[in-house]
Amino acid sequence: MAASAASVSSPCPLCDGDGGALVWRGPKLRVIRAQEAGFPAFYRVVWAAHAAEFTDLAPADRVHCMEAVAAVESALRAHLHPDKINLAALGNMVPHLHWHVIARFAWDSHFPGAVWAAAQRERAPEREAEVAGRLAAAEAEMAERLAQLA
Amino acid sequence: MAASAASVSSPCPLCDGDGGALVWRGPKLRVIRAQEAGFPAFYRVVWAAHAAEFTDLAPADRVHCMEAVAAVESALRAHLHPDKINLAALGNMVPHLHWHVIARFAWDSHFPGAVWAAAQRERAPEREAEVAGRLAAAEAEMAERLAQLA
Repeated sequence: MAASAASVSSPCPLCDGDGGALVWRGPKLRVIRAQEAGFPAFYRVVWAAHAAEFTDLAPADRVHCMEAVAAVESALRAHLHPDKINLAALGNMVPHLHWHVIARFAWDSHFPGAVWAAAQRERAPEREAEVAGRLAAAEAEMAERLAQLA
Repeated sequence: MAASAASVSSPCPLCDGDGGALVWRGPKLRVIRAQEAGFPAFYRVVWAAHAAEFTDLAPADRVHCMEAVAAVESALRAHLHPDKINLAALGNMVPHLHWHVIARFAWDSHFPGAVWAAAQRERAPEREAEVAGRLAAAEAEMAERLAQLA
Protein backbone atom coordinates (compact mmCIF):
# COMPACT_ATOMS: atom_id res chain seq x y z
CA MET A 1 0.00 0.00 0.00
CA ALA A 2 1.27 3.52 0.68
CA ALA A 3 5.03 3.79 0.96
CA SER A 4 6.36 5.14 4.21
CA ALA A 5 7.97 8.57 4.08
CA ALA A 6 11.34 6.93 4.69
CA SER A 7 11.05 4.86 1.51
CA VAL A 8 10.52 7.89 -0.75
CA SER A 9 13.85 8.21 -2.50
CA SER A 10 13.37 11.53 -4.29
CA PRO A 11 12.14 14.76 -2.69
CA CYS A 12 8.35 15.11 -2.91
CA PRO A 13 6.93 18.63 -2.83
CA LEU A 14 3.67 17.37 -1.30
CA CYS A 15 5.57 15.58 1.49
CA ASP A 16 7.80 18.61 2.08
CA GLY A 17 5.10 21.31 2.18
CA ASP A 18 1.38 22.02 2.05
CA GLY A 19 1.47 22.82 -1.68
CA GLY A 20 -0.80 25.87 -1.43
CA ALA A 21 -2.85 27.91 0.99
CA LEU A 22 -4.01 25.51 3.70
CA VAL A 23 -7.80 25.42 4.09
CA TRP A 24 -8.17 22.41 6.36
CA ARG A 25 -6.03 19.57 7.66
CA GLY A 26 -7.20 16.27 9.07
CA PRO A 27 -5.38 13.10 10.05
CA LYS A 28 -5.52 11.55 6.58
CA LEU A 29 -5.65 14.47 4.17
CA ARG A 30 -5.54 18.22 3.78
CA VAL A 31 -7.31 20.69 1.49
CA ILE A 32 -5.41 23.56 -0.02
CA ARG A 33 -6.29 26.45 -2.32
CA ALA A 34 -3.95 26.04 -5.25
CA GLN A 35 -3.52 29.69 -6.27
CA GLU A 36 -3.39 28.90 -9.98
CA ALA A 37 -3.55 32.04 -12.13
CA GLY A 38 -6.90 32.43 -13.87
CA PHE A 39 -8.67 29.85 -11.69
CA PRO A 40 -9.51 31.44 -8.36
CA ALA A 41 -11.53 28.46 -7.12
CA PHE A 42 -8.93 25.75 -7.72
CA TYR A 43 -8.56 23.44 -4.69
CA ARG A 44 -6.61 20.29 -4.04
CA VAL A 45 -7.38 17.43 -1.69
CA VAL A 46 -3.93 16.07 -0.82
CA TRP A 47 -3.60 12.63 0.76
CA ALA A 48 -1.19 12.86 3.72
CA ALA A 49 0.72 9.62 3.11
CA HIS A 50 2.93 9.34 0.06
CA ALA A 51 0.81 7.12 -2.20
CA ALA A 52 1.00 7.46 -5.97
CA GLU A 53 -2.25 5.93 -7.15
CA PHE A 54 -5.87 5.96 -5.96
CA THR A 55 -5.78 2.15 -5.68
CA ASP A 56 -2.75 2.35 -3.38
CA LEU A 57 -5.34 3.40 -0.77
CA ALA A 58 -7.38 0.84 1.13
CA PRO A 59 -11.08 0.84 0.13
CA ALA A 60 -12.16 2.67 3.31
CA ASP A 61 -9.53 5.33 2.67
CA ARG A 62 -10.74 5.73 -0.90
CA VAL A 63 -14.23 6.39 0.43
CA HIS A 64 -12.88 8.92 2.93
CA CYS A 65 -10.81 10.63 0.25
CA MET A 66 -13.72 10.95 -2.19
CA GLU A 67 -16.11 12.16 0.51
CA ALA A 68 -13.56 14.92 1.15
CA VAL A 69 -13.55 15.70 -2.57
CA ALA A 70 -17.36 15.76 -2.45
CA ALA A 71 -17.29 18.11 0.55
CA VAL A 72 -15.11 20.56 -1.37
CA GLU A 73 -17.30 20.24 -4.46
CA SER A 74 -20.48 20.79 -2.45
CA ALA A 75 -19.14 23.96 -0.83
CA LEU A 76 -18.00 25.34 -4.19
CA ARG A 77 -21.37 24.61 -5.78
CA ALA A 78 -23.28 26.19 -2.91
CA HIS A 79 -21.29 29.42 -2.83
CA LEU A 80 -20.05 29.93 -6.39
CA HIS A 81 -22.70 28.30 -8.61
CA PRO A 82 -20.08 27.29 -11.18
CA ASP A 83 -21.01 26.12 -14.66
CA LYS A 84 -19.10 22.89 -13.98
CA ILE A 85 -16.91 21.22 -11.40
CA ASN A 86 -13.79 19.47 -12.68
CA LEU A 87 -12.24 16.63 -10.65
CA ALA A 88 -8.91 15.05 -11.49
CA ALA A 89 -6.12 12.99 -10.00
CA LEU A 90 -3.28 13.01 -12.53
CA GLY A 91 0.03 13.11 -10.64
CA ASN A 92 2.24 12.69 -13.69
CA MET A 93 4.67 15.27 -12.39
CA VAL A 94 4.07 14.85 -8.65
CA PRO A 95 3.14 11.20 -8.07
CA HIS A 96 1.68 11.84 -4.61
CA LEU A 97 -2.09 11.38 -4.61
CA HIS A 98 -3.88 14.72 -4.87
CA TRP A 99 -7.29 15.51 -6.27
CA HIS A 100 -7.87 18.73 -8.18
CA VAL A 101 -11.31 20.19 -7.46
CA ILE A 102 -11.87 23.15 -9.75
CA ALA A 103 -14.91 25.38 -10.13
CA ARG A 104 -15.20 26.23 -13.81
CA PHE A 105 -17.11 29.06 -15.41
CA ALA A 106 -18.25 29.54 -18.99
CA TRP A 107 -16.33 32.86 -19.01
CA ASP A 108 -13.01 31.43 -17.76
CA SER A 109 -10.02 31.52 -20.10
CA HIS A 110 -10.10 27.79 -20.90
CA PHE A 111 -13.76 26.76 -20.77
CA PRO A 112 -14.99 24.29 -22.04
CA GLY A 113 -11.45 22.98 -22.39
CA ALA A 114 -9.54 21.46 -19.51
CA VAL A 115 -7.42 23.84 -17.43
CA TRP A 116 -4.40 21.95 -18.83
CA ALA A 117 -5.40 22.66 -22.44
CA ALA A 118 -4.69 25.85 -24.40
CA ALA A 119 -6.52 29.04 -23.43
CA GLN A 120 -9.54 29.86 -25.56
CA ARG A 121 -9.96 33.52 -24.61
CA GLU A 122 -8.58 36.32 -22.45
CA ARG A 123 -8.98 36.18 -18.70
CA ALA A 124 -11.80 38.16 -17.05
CA PRO A 125 -10.17 39.82 -14.00
CA GLU A 126 -13.37 41.39 -12.68
CA ARG A 127 -15.24 38.12 -12.75
CA GLU A 128 -12.28 36.31 -11.21
CA ALA A 129 -12.27 38.89 -8.41
CA GLU A 130 -15.98 38.42 -7.86
CA VAL A 131 -15.41 34.68 -7.41
CA ALA A 132 -12.41 35.30 -5.15
CA GLY A 133 -14.63 37.44 -2.93
CA ARG A 134 -16.84 34.44 -2.22
CA LEU A 135 -14.08 32.00 -1.31
CA ALA A 136 -13.94 32.78 2.41
CA ALA A 137 -17.55 31.68 2.81
CA ALA A 138 -17.02 28.64 0.59
CA GLU A 139 -13.95 27.63 2.60
CA ALA A 140 -15.80 28.01 5.89
CA GLU A 141 -18.44 25.58 4.65
CA MET A 142 -15.73 23.29 3.28
CA ALA A 143 -13.99 23.14 6.65
CA GLU A 144 -17.28 22.44 8.42
CA ARG A 145 -18.12 19.59 6.04
CA LEU A 146 -14.59 18.16 6.23
CA ALA A 147 -14.57 18.22 10.02
CA GLN A 148 -17.72 16.10 9.98
CA LEU A 149 -15.87 13.45 7.98
CA ALA A 150 -12.76 13.33 10.13
CA MET B 1 -30.49 14.38 -7.43
CA ALA B 2 -30.07 12.96 -10.93
CA ALA B 3 -32.49 14.35 -13.48
CA SER B 4 -34.72 11.84 -15.19
CA ALA B 5 -34.09 11.22 -18.86
CA ALA B 6 -37.34 12.99 -19.64
CA SER B 7 -36.12 16.23 -18.08
CA VAL B 8 -32.98 16.42 -20.24
CA SER B 9 -33.85 19.15 -22.68
CA SER B 10 -30.89 18.90 -25.06
CA PRO B 11 -29.60 15.72 -26.69
CA CYS B 12 -26.93 14.02 -24.58
CA PRO B 13 -24.46 11.76 -26.41
CA LEU B 14 -23.97 9.64 -23.28
CA CYS B 15 -27.73 9.13 -22.92
CA ASP B 16 -28.11 8.37 -26.62
CA GLY B 17 -25.25 5.88 -27.02
CA ASP B 18 -22.53 3.97 -25.23
CA GLY B 19 -19.86 6.55 -26.13
CA GLY B 20 -17.20 3.98 -27.05
CA ALA B 21 -16.50 0.28 -27.20
CA LEU B 22 -18.56 -1.30 -24.43
CA VAL B 23 -16.49 -3.31 -21.95
CA TRP B 24 -19.06 -3.91 -19.24
CA ARG B 25 -22.53 -2.70 -18.31
CA GLY B 26 -24.17 -2.87 -14.92
CA PRO B 27 -27.41 -1.44 -13.57
CA LYS B 28 -25.84 1.88 -12.50
CA LEU B 29 -22.89 2.40 -14.82
CA ARG B 30 -20.99 1.12 -17.81
CA VAL B 31 -17.32 1.00 -18.77
CA ILE B 32 -16.23 1.80 -22.30
CA ARG B 33 -12.91 1.92 -24.10
CA ALA B 34 -12.72 5.44 -25.46
CA GLN B 35 -10.68 4.81 -28.61
CA GLU B 36 -8.79 8.09 -28.32
CA ALA B 37 -5.89 8.30 -30.79
CA GLY B 38 -2.52 7.95 -29.09
CA PHE B 39 -3.95 6.58 -25.85
CA PRO B 40 -4.81 2.92 -26.33
CA ALA B 41 -5.68 2.35 -22.67
CA PHE B 42 -8.19 5.17 -22.25
CA TYR B 43 -11.37 4.02 -20.50
CA ARG B 44 -14.46 5.79 -19.25
CA VAL B 45 -16.77 4.86 -16.41
CA VAL B 46 -20.10 6.35 -17.45
CA TRP B 47 -22.88 6.77 -14.92
CA ALA B 48 -26.14 5.50 -16.42
CA ALA B 49 -28.43 8.26 -15.14
CA HIS B 50 -28.04 11.77 -16.52
CA ALA B 51 -26.30 13.50 -13.61
CA ALA B 52 -23.88 16.34 -14.23
CA GLU B 53 -21.80 16.45 -11.06
CA PHE B 54 -20.28 13.85 -8.74
CA THR B 55 -22.25 15.34 -5.84
CA ASP B 56 -25.49 14.86 -7.75
CA LEU B 57 -25.05 11.20 -6.77
CA ALA B 58 -26.15 9.91 -3.38
CA PRO B 59 -23.20 9.00 -1.12
CA ALA B 60 -23.67 5.25 -1.65
CA ASP B 61 -23.71 5.78 -5.41
CA ARG B 62 -20.51 7.82 -5.18
CA VAL B 63 -18.87 4.89 -3.41
CA HIS B 64 -20.12 2.46 -6.06
CA CYS B 65 -18.95 4.74 -8.86
CA MET B 66 -15.45 5.16 -7.42
CA GLU B 67 -15.08 1.45 -6.69
CA ALA B 68 -15.82 0.92 -10.39
CA VAL B 69 -13.13 3.48 -11.23
CA ALA B 70 -10.78 1.61 -8.87
CA ALA B 71 -11.64 -1.71 -10.54
CA VAL B 72 -10.68 -0.30 -13.94
CA GLU B 73 -7.51 1.23 -12.51
CA SER B 74 -6.53 -2.03 -10.80
CA ALA B 75 -6.94 -4.05 -14.00
CA LEU B 76 -4.91 -1.53 -15.99
CA ARG B 77 -2.13 -1.53 -13.41
CA ALA B 78 -2.01 -5.31 -13.24
CA HIS B 79 -1.84 -5.88 -17.01
CA LEU B 80 -0.14 -2.77 -18.40
CA HIS B 81 2.17 -1.57 -15.60
CA PRO B 82 1.69 2.07 -16.64
CA ASP B 83 3.93 4.85 -15.37
CA LYS B 84 0.83 6.60 -14.03
CA ILE B 85 -2.93 6.34 -13.96
CA ASN B 86 -4.88 9.53 -14.64
CA LEU B 87 -8.43 9.90 -13.30
CA ALA B 88 -10.71 12.78 -14.21
CA ALA B 89 -14.35 13.80 -14.28
CA LEU B 90 -14.54 17.04 -16.26
CA GLY B 91 -17.75 17.07 -18.29
CA ASN B 92 -17.41 20.62 -19.55
CA MET B 93 -18.58 19.60 -23.00
CA VAL B 94 -20.73 16.61 -22.06
CA PRO B 95 -22.20 17.32 -18.61
CA HIS B 96 -23.16 13.70 -17.96
CA LEU B 97 -21.00 12.17 -15.23
CA HIS B 98 -18.19 10.10 -16.71
CA TRP B 99 -14.80 9.27 -15.27
CA HIS B 100 -11.78 9.08 -17.52
CA VAL B 101 -9.39 6.31 -16.42
CA ILE B 102 -6.24 6.54 -18.52
CA ALA B 103 -3.09 4.46 -18.34
CA ARG B 104 -0.19 6.81 -19.06
CA PHE B 105 3.31 5.92 -20.15
CA ALA B 106 6.49 7.97 -20.04
CA TRP B 107 6.81 7.42 -23.80
CA ASP B 108 3.30 8.59 -24.71
CA SER B 109 2.94 11.73 -26.81
CA HIS B 110 1.78 13.95 -23.93
CA PHE B 111 3.53 12.62 -20.82
CA PRO B 112 3.98 14.10 -18.24
CA GLY B 113 1.38 16.59 -19.46
CA ALA B 114 -2.35 15.90 -19.30
CA VAL B 115 -3.89 14.22 -22.34
CA TRP B 116 -5.75 17.50 -22.87
CA ALA B 117 -2.53 19.53 -23.04
CA ALA B 118 -0.28 19.98 -26.07
CA ALA B 119 1.71 16.99 -27.33
CA GLN B 120 5.32 16.90 -26.19
CA ARG B 121 6.67 14.37 -28.69
CA GLU B 122 5.73 12.11 -31.59
CA ARG B 123 3.54 9.10 -31.01
CA ALA B 124 5.16 5.67 -30.66
CA PRO B 125 2.99 3.32 -32.76
CA GLU B 126 4.90 0.15 -31.88
CA ARG B 127 4.61 0.76 -28.17
CA GLU B 128 0.95 1.72 -28.54
CA ALA B 129 0.37 -1.56 -30.37
CA GLU B 130 2.14 -3.49 -27.62
CA VAL B 131 -0.22 -1.93 -25.06
CA ALA B 132 -3.23 -2.58 -27.29
CA GLY B 133 -2.26 -6.24 -27.39
CA ARG B 134 -2.70 -6.52 -23.64
CA LEU B 135 -6.13 -4.88 -23.45
CA ALA B 136 -8.19 -8.03 -23.89
CA ALA B 137 -6.69 -9.52 -20.75
CA ALA B 138 -7.02 -6.22 -18.86
CA GLU B 139 -10.67 -5.93 -19.89
CA ALA B 140 -11.41 -9.50 -18.82
CA GLU B 141 -10.09 -8.68 -15.34
CA MET B 142 -11.97 -5.37 -15.37
CA ALA B 143 -15.25 -7.14 -16.14
CA GLU B 144 -14.62 -9.69 -13.42
CA ARG B 145 -13.91 -7.01 -10.83
CA LEU B 146 -16.89 -4.90 -11.93
CA ALA B 147 -19.26 -7.86 -11.75
CA GLN B 148 -18.23 -8.35 -8.12
CA LEU B 149 -19.35 -4.79 -7.36
CA ALA B 150 -22.72 -4.99 -9.08
